[in-house]
Amino acid sequence: MIDQLIDKIRETGNPSVVGLDPTPAMIPEYLKRQMYRQYGQTPEAVAAIFTAFNRLVIEQIWDLIPAVKPQIAMYEQYGIPGLTSYMETIRYAKSKGLIVIGDIKRGDIGSTAAAYASHIGGVEIEGVRHDLWKEDAITVNPYFGTDGIQPFVAACKGRGIFVLIRSSNPGSAELQELETGGEAMYLKVADLVAEWGKDLIGQHGYSEVGAVVGATWPEQGSALRERLPNT
Amino acid sequence: MIDQLIDKIRETGNPSVVGLDPTPAMIPEYLKRQMYRQYGQTPEAVAAIFTAFNRLVIEQIWDLIPAVKPQIAMYEQYGIPGLTSYMETIRYAKSKGLIVIGDIKRGDIGSTAAAYASHIGGVEIEGVRHDLWKEDAITVNPYFGTDGIQPFVAACKGRGIFVLIRSSNPGSAELQELETGGEAMYLKVADLVAEWGKDLIGQHGYSEVGAVVGATWPEQGSALRERLPNT
Repeated sequence: MIDQLIDKIRETGNPSVVGLDPTPAMIPEYLKRQMYRQYGQTPEAVAAIFTAFNRLVIEQIWDLIPAVKPQIAMYEQYGIPGLTSYMETIRYAKSKGLIVIGDIKRGDIGSTAAAYASHIGGVEIEGVRHDLWKEDAITVNPYFGTDGIQPFVAACKGRGIFVLIRSSNPGSAELQELETGGEAMYLKVADLVAEWGKDLIGQHGYSEVGAVVGATWPEQGSALRERLPNT
Repeated sequence: MIDQLIDKIRETGNPSVVGLDPTPAMIPEYLKRQMYRQYGQTPEAVAAIFTAFNRLVIEQIWDLIPAVKPQIAMYEQYGIPGLTSYMETIRYAKSKGLIVIGDIKRGDIGSTAAAYASHIGGVEIEGVRHDLWKEDAITVNPYFGTDGIQPFVAACKGRGIFVLIRSSNPGSAELQELETGGEAMYLKVADLVAEWGKDLIGQHGYSEVGAVVGATWPEQGSALRERLPNT
């Protein structure tokens, strides 16, 4: 994933990722009216709205940017139809050559993390491999430590993960900035992320194991960029 | 949720929760053979196996225990058919009077957490409320801090959450036991959990905001039980 991402950033001359986090309130009325008329006030209507809206967005941007990042929660709240729209969005974005980063922030103990890793690694059923989710990369939560992350790292075969280090919200300081051993806790997470990714460094010098750092903390972002040269 | 859970623990004389984390390797051959013959080596087959197996388990235990806890990752790895089985399992367990704790470990910044909170709070579509997931309670991840948890707390109207404090895996010590201000980091999480739940204490003295503490750390479990008398 990471080499293709860097290649596409150079190709497009653009490091931006477009978030696909649809909310009905932000979508044009004409599109909504049509779907609500057809499907009623149902999750199926919202799913059809999301798929159609994302398609319009992707059609406008696919040749200008390297990647899109759908936030699964926005789809998951509409149940099975919502998650079907998430998958359709991924499929369409990939058909246009975009790299897809699924913002899913999953994380758990090892055996459970191995199941979540199917998002990038697929799942085997009686000897037959199925790639059901199809994200090129996903975001994951570090709170469980190394054995909770290892199954995701093991699934990074041409795909990747971005581990949350510092989130953008105000309340993130409560735990992420707790001082431990003379520095903020999130820096310990940062060092773990570098360690987790050290054997997966691609041709351009970056690892398949990346980091999520909220852009609301620009100074911390710069410091982390220096601390994690390959991440 | 919490008052009904305590009532049912007293009624059954049993504080056990049965996990519904199906894996094909642990399910009887006769059940699998039938479904693979009917659906092939597909996610649809595995979903049908999970639903049938969970039904058999629930039929045996529904009157002996208060609650079940399906682990969503085991279903999510089989895509849409898997998640449909997760929902069918929840519906069947509830029809037998069991309390359902969805082990989903979701967590993100506030606006995203609000979307995930639909698992317990439902979702509104053009003025119509839909309860699509139907869990009575869910597990959540604390790493984002108060504003990442608040939307879940706000959705606890007769339902509940269990916030991860200390996970059962060996690697959990890496972050959860970092020393900060003279004690382990997970104790800071514990104090936050008590704070988040303090206005949601039910008739039996326990909060709708509970805690997840891995049973692999029995001494920490006892200490947390004392530290969090209402959790």
